[in-house]
Amino acid sequence: MKRTIILFDINETVLNLSALKPKFKATFGDESVMATWFSMLLHSSTVCIMTSVKTDFATLAGTMLESIAARMSIKLSKAARDDILAGFANLPPHNDIKPALAQLKSAGFRTVAFSNSSLNLISTQITNAGLKEYFDDIISVEETGSFKPDPTVYKFAAKRLNQPLESLRLVATHDWDTHGALSVEMRAAYINRSGAVYHPLYRQPDIYATTMEDIVKLIIEKDD
Amino acid sequence: MKRTIILFDINETVLNLSALKPKFKATFGDESVMATWFSMLLHSSTVCIMTSVKTDFATLAGTMLESIAARMSIKLSKAARDDILAGFANLPPHNDIKPALAQLKSAGFRTVAFSNSSLNLISTQITNAGLKEYFDDIISVEETGSFKPDPTVYKFAAKRLNQPLESLRLVATHDWDTHGALSVEMRAAYINRSGAVYHPLYRQPDIYATTMEDIVKLIIEKDD
Repeated sequence: MKRTIILFDINETVLNLSALKPKFKATFGDESVMATWFSMLLHSSTVCIMTSVKTDFATLAGTMLESIAARMSIKLSKAARDDILAGFANLPPHNDIKPALAQLKSAGFRTVAFSNSSLNLISTQITNAGLKEYFDDIISVEETGSFKPDPTVYKFAAKRLNQPLESLRLVATHDWDTHGALSVEMRAAYINRSGAVYHPLYRQPDIYATTMEDIVKLIIEKDD
Repeated sequence: MKRTIILFDINETVLNLSALKPKFKATFGDESVMATWFSMLLHSSTVCIMTSVKTDFATLAGTMLESIAARMSIKLSKAARDDILAGFANLPPHNDIKPALAQLKSAGFRTVAFSNSSLNLISTQITNAGLKEYFDDIISVEETGSFKPDPTVYKFAAKRLNQPLESLRLVATHDWDTHGALSVEMRAAYINRSGAVYHPLYRQPDIYATTMEDIVKLIIEKDD
């Protein structure tokens, strides 16, 4: 029996955020606004950690939409705001996700969805993406009152799974997330979906690949 | 004698970051990339706080330029990278800054530059912007090994100035920065330069205005 449990980040790693691009194009006239919005959302979540503001990811996602609209002098209608946020709850999986999760499970690994979204939002996202039977468990940062990459939330996941940190491996397409996991001695695998350079100051995972097929192959080789 | 010392955030609050837009346009084909870059820089700085990575703002600024270029599949030449970062050290002041600082000083306030940039970078920025005689002091987060809005850095500024936190007021155009100051009982004034909505979950300052003239007027009224 495999002892390693594989945690998957959800937004961008499992689900394809690019599906929101047409909505950003329609509302903001420029699909690249999506990247700015997501980056502002991440920054705001870390500010909330540091200053002990209790909130959830969806609330911050809405606030950051309004912020960027105001900054661009664009009137954000309630309909457009709701449409983008509904789209966020209805993202399709990347094409490589179902085969990867199926392969890991048939190789005996347990798979866990682990996200900054609230438990309710992750559950909705996973169900809408048709991935419900591909995950053994769902863990949200929600109960910790914090967000990744706060060390607290990776430790919380290990406690929830009743496993030592070093028997867990996080798969993510964000270097700040794999770095956060590695900072508390969790293992990690980085899938480079965007072409982004891995931050040279962040901790480097022993598994790094550009396709999920390679990630799975390397996990099976190393963690079997 | 006035007891209140007024701290000024530098990037975007005092100095006009928009001066970099033509450089972003030339390198990335789109000046709006600047906003994404600055937001990624801020997020990375908070990740470094939370995971105890020691670095400086200029290093992160360079890394984030490379990251966004790779993500956009744009080859970032060393010349273009250096040009943008040199531009960052050579930003012009907003037009309202010299009169505002002069007015505060002649009303008896002390003025302090207080930034996430290293001491060397802030000093260069202030000198290049022709603002050297407008500030009584310069404080960088550098010695703390952290960045705003970590509570530590506001407390550090108070200690450096040998003043209680409540006798200081921070002027900034970033709500996460005024919020950070207010979270440790420093006073704050928010200048809305971008039209952005003030984050509803962040602490609200008692001074909020869209022009620096109004900010100064309100400071003199309240803190005299």
